[in-house]
Amino acid sequence: MTQERKLRLGAFVQATGHHIAAWRHPGSQADSGTNIDHYQEVAATAERGKFDLIFLADSPGGWETDGPARGRLGRVAVFEPVTLWAALAARTEHIGFVATASTTYEEPYTLARKFASLDHISKGRAAWNVVTTGAENVAGNFGLSKHPDHSLRYERAEEFVDVVKGLWDSYDDDAFSRDKESGVYYDPDKQHALNHQGKHFQVRGPLNISRPPQGYPVIVQAGASEPGRELAARTAEVIFTAWQTLEEAQAFYRDLKARLPKYGRKPEELLVMPGISPVIGRTQEEAEAKARELEELIHPDVGINILSRYFPGVDLRSYDLDGPPPPFLESTNGNKSRLSLITELAQREKLSLRQLYQRLAGARGHRVVVGTPSRIADEIELWFRNEAADGFNVMPPVLPQSLNEFVELVIPELQRRGLFRKEYEGRSLRENLGLARPTSRYALGADKRQTAA
Amino acid sequence: MTQERKLRLGAFVQATGHHIAAWRHPGSQADSGTNIDHYQEVAATAERGKFDLIFLADSPGGWETDGPARGRLGRVAVFEPVTLWAALAARTEHIGFVATASTTYEEPYTLARKFASLDHISKGRAAWNVVTTGAENVAGNFGLSKHPDHSLRYERAEEFVDVVKGLWDSYDDDAFSRDKESGVYYDPDKQHALNHQGKHFQVRGPLNISRPPQGYPVIVQAGASEPGRELAARTAEVIFTAWQTLEEAQAFYRDLKARLPKYGRKPEELLVMPGISPVIGRTQEEAEAKARELEELIHPDVGINILSRYFPGVDLRSYDLDGPPPPFLESTNGNKSRLSLITELAQREKLSLRQLYQRLAGARGHRVVVGTPSRIADEIELWFRNEAADGFNVMPPVLPQSLNEFVELVIPELQRRGLFRKEYEGRSLRENLGLARPTSRYALGADKRQTAA
Repeated sequence: MTQERKLRLGAFVQATGHHIAAWRHPGSQADSGTNIDHYQEVAATAERGKFDLIFLADSPGGWETDGPARGRLGRVAVFEPVTLWAALAARTEHIGFVATASTTYEEPYTLARKFASLDHISKGRAAWNVVTTGAENVAGNFGLSKHPDHSLRYERAEEFVDVVKGLWDSYDDDAFSRDKESGVYYDPDKQHALNHQGKHFQVRGPLNISRPPQGYPVIVQAGASEPGRELAARTAEVIFTAWQTLEEAQAFYRDLKARLPKYGRKPEELLVMPGISPVIGRTQEEAEAKARELEELIHPDVGINILSRYFPGVDLRSYDLDGPPPPFLESTNGNKSRLSLITELAQREKLSLRQLYQRLAGARGHRVVVGTPSRIADEIELWFRNEAADGFNVMPPVLPQSLNEFVELVIPELQRRGLFRKEYEGRSLRENLGLARPTSRYALGADKRQTAA
Repeated sequence: MTQERKLRLGAFVQATGHHIAAWRHPGSQADSGTNIDHYQEVAATAERGKFDLIFLADSPGGWETDGPARGRLGRVAVFEPVTLWAALAARTEHIGFVATASTTYEEPYTLARKFASLDHISKGRAAWNVVTTGAENVAGNFGLSKHPDHSLRYERAEEFVDVVKGLWDSYDDDAFSRDKESGVYYDPDKQHALNHQGKHFQVRGPLNISRPPQGYPVIVQAGASEPGRELAARTAEVIFTAWQTLEEAQAFYRDLKARLPKYGRKPEELLVMPGISPVIGRTQEEAEAKARELEELIHPDVGINILSRYFPGVDLRSYDLDGPPPPFLESTNGNKSRLSLITELAQREKLSLRQLYQRLAGARGHRVVVGTPSRIADEIELWFRNEAADGFNVMPPVLPQSLNEFVELVIPELQRRGLFRKEYEGRSLRENLGLARPTSRYALGADKRQTAA
């Protein structure tokens, strides 16, 4: 069994790179957030490296803009992910496109349409990263006085995903005969109005687009809180996650996989992909020098800004940067799983405020590995072979430079070890990920009726 | 003055073509609604023809699906326009992309983002066709029990457009220094939160993307009702419209242009582009035979379906197809301007029910011209030279065939007459249309302060 599993790799290609100071680094494209040529290059590089997918996080709002760090943050101006991926789908052939979209601030009908459209445009390479949106400041962009509570957001997300899938099933796969002779374009019995009446949504349907080539775009999630895990176990096919240690990652992996049977799902139907941010050197010394170079580019105001969301209401500037951080607050309506991860990291390693922001500056709590291609491949293999990961979401600290290095140096090492593909297996993202194409609810219903008869 | 004006041409490329029976015609691509290769071909053809822009209408809902025509209508499965245009922007260099999006069923923040994104992706070739959505059945897809009233929709649209423009101004054109040395990415004084508090919307901002290359994507509209004309006069830069006769088109053209001064605008700041659906033959006989061929492909159930929206609550099937239509009803909450156009057409030409649907089947009330390239160029020139049009929205009856014919036969004739460009003038859609790049409201404010000082 183990030798047949294939490693999955995503390229998480946020703007100038994942390191907070990436935009200042000579290896980054400083205007990459809205530079289509930059993303064109990055997508081509990832496809050359045979990555399964390329991924963008997203929030329908701006990066926090108050305080002295204002003006120093390089992620304020970025593309909307679905439009960007549609453009790059037209310029690539194999790689999958994971776009983040919010169940709290979008409408199911609109979201279902645009992802179905992206799946048709890319001929089956679309995926939706389902998020409930953690940033509280987004509410004000949508006329809400207050960001909805965590539990309410997840309740809405559960219903939202069901509605979207139902809309994607609006037409059976074989609904369209398009017979010019008879004049019958589609079979009305194979068109289905959803007529959903739920707590959060009332959606009639049908969707005005044929069933996506993949049945449904691949469903991705990233929440690690209790309701996030349940939502993932029930609906997700890929989960992005952030862990610092093998043990934490294993605990999460096993927990997630153990939740699947109650939803009638098998372990291989949900791929667990932790983030990994590799700082690559041809020698260990070169890698460590690169990491230091990035750390030194962090302006202290920016460092404090990174930490501020974890200490709401606390004036961090009154604390000694080289002393211990103030206590974390338990009650927050933001991203719960990320907070507990940070708390544990700070306490386990007894980090100073400066050390804490230097850690988070690299990949916001995801694992940073500083080393040679062989060392990085070792880490990947260790987690992959020991129930901690089905693959990794690779987070280049600097773009395009770090992705280029990964493709030139680490991918060949993974291929030599027989861990990673040398050619794409299939045409769709599902085929490359080894995920089955979902059957329409109406086809399932018809099968059941036949069995019962 | 007249000799300096340039004719503007849009390619209105709805799925299989504008004729209701287009999908049955041998010259159409029957699955074009979701066929990216088809649209790729169409965009390349339009760009070869030096069209200013390519346009898609849109409604966030399905085509009417009840009654015996169900299954015979070929426009039920279509791309979402912004994602489609993003894909084609990556494959073209000059042509502009007009995407329709609804002020009734979208959120300003989300809409502003995706159009800004499309404008960056296309390097300044995006346009937004502002619609309030006429189809009443859309409401059910968005949890509304009732489609909002016409006047309420226009009131919301007015505010919506202002909010979107305000969001596009979130960053000044020169806000981003991205100075790697100093670590200053942008000038905080050149970032503006909108803090809009209106009747329909409360939107904080700023938008999370830099100002679009065109300042604002070009604003397009198509409403011809009184509130539609006022909205256009105040905010639109291109208006698509539908007229059967030169006199009607002139009245509309003059009316629109006369409304501009009260908003401080000049006549050339709003381009009036009526629709024209050309059925092209190398001889008049060939063109007429083509028109008949299309008419004969209309199934009577489909014909009745076309008319049903103009006769709400009337069972048209109980009427003789070759007798006169029943009386039109005045009160409707749908598309008012289109209704009065149809009413006048039916009464003026004393059409039977069958003749009425055959007329509407071609281009839903837009002018259909059946003839040689020279005859079609004559019509275009007549309207262009006589205050009826600044250009035309060309509606190919069958796609891709009719657009190919237009580019091969009519475009060269228009070029010979000196009416139409042989090469694109500029890089952006605004440059090609001769429209100025809007100045940010904040820059205008600064200028005013300087003048006052």
